[in-house]
Amino acid sequence: MNFIDLVAQTRTCRRFRQSASVSPLVVRGLVDLGRLAACAGNLQPLKYVLSTSPAKNAAIFPHLRWAAYFRDWAGPEEGERPAAYIVVCRDNTISDTPGSDHGFATQNILLGATDCGLGACPIGSIDRDGLRRVLDVPEYCEILLVIALGYPAETVQLETVFSDRSIRYWRDPAGVHHVPKRSLEEIILLEFTEPPGVA
Amino acid sequence: MNFIDLVAQTRTCRRFRQSASVSPLVVRGLVDLGRLAACAGNLQPLKYVLSTSPAKNAAIFPHLRWAAYFRDWAGPEEGERPAAYIVVCRDNTISDTPGSDHGFATQNILLGATDCGLGACPIGSIDRDGLRRVLDVPEYCEILLVIALGYPAETVQLETVFSDRSIRYWRDPAGVHHVPKRSLEEIILLEFTEPPGVA
Repeated sequence: MNFIDLVAQTRTCRRFRQSASVSPLVVRGLVDLGRLAACAGNLQPLKYVLSTSPAKNAAIFPHLRWAAYFRDWAGPEEGERPAAYIVVCRDNTISDTPGSDHGFATQNILLGATDCGLGACPIGSIDRDGLRRVLDVPEYCEILLVIALGYPAETVQLETVFSDRSIRYWRDPAGVHHVPKRSLEEIILLEFTEPPGVA
Repeated sequence: MNFIDLVAQTRTCRRFRQSASVSPLVVRGLVDLGRLAACAGNLQPLKYVLSTSPAKNAAIFPHLRWAAYFRDWAGPEEGERPAAYIVVCRDNTISDTPGSDHGFATQNILLGATDCGLGACPIGSIDRDGLRRVLDVPEYCEILLVIALGYPAETVQLETVFSDRSIRYWRDPAGVHHVPKRSLEEIILLEFTEPPGVA
């Protein structure tokens, strides 16, 4: 798949074929993509917790908050829950600076997941104390993001939204999840180009 | 190029063929990849300033800090400076929460740059007040990152470093830039898999 299609197809997925297990090797391969991302001062403070264990997955699930705009939906039902998780942590003994590192690494993981047919959901709304307890994450590591993974059980569709319309994602009666994105024109604040005829 | 190679080849580049101009269309295409990244609550607070103008590029350059580990190198010399810039900003009227959005979007842009033969350097060490002045960035937008772009004039080599060795990048006498990355084993904090024979 070309890279532009990969980016377009890398959509947040919130319902999975829970019984389709994800190989621990695939999850390690995804973390390896995160490992190779650039980071501030090349310090590489990110550390990862991996789970493909159904029992551990069940312990992780209650500590995550799903889809804030869907008030009547507390997250995927049993049977549609993630089959694997990657928890992205920062080792504060290496660097305690919040920055962009976890975003760079996570995006490699999200794209890599799409590339191998998985769906993924990056989750920042986490009961961090509870999750730390069930995973035994040491105190010197801060939990930044959780990436839920699994083979997708939903269809997600990108749309362009115009500036006067809502950017809230929505689900149609057929269960398709729609994601309205602002247009390129709306997000370009300023553009400086060589004036024609100057060169 | 397959995605794993794309990730491996997406290395920070700090010396460019400055005279090889980058088309404004390519820069817009890269911003469009950032546009399609996932973001918290789909709010899409990121806004972008684009420059392919040599005059504006010259005004941007003094406000950036390069390669902290190279004390004798203040950044690329005239002739090896970026041919384009993307400044990633957050529109605080949409969201003022620091998070992962800019990291997700920037990684799409960095990978996309590699995919079309460009080199890129994400820079977080910025004289933000100075840059805001030369670009006329409005007060409601916060400058998060600068992505320097151009056709590469240096070779970068990934290496695996062992935990007792330095992670500082270095340049060899031939000018090759070496980037030591921690091993996968070192960054996996915990791993939970289904015990064999349980299923």
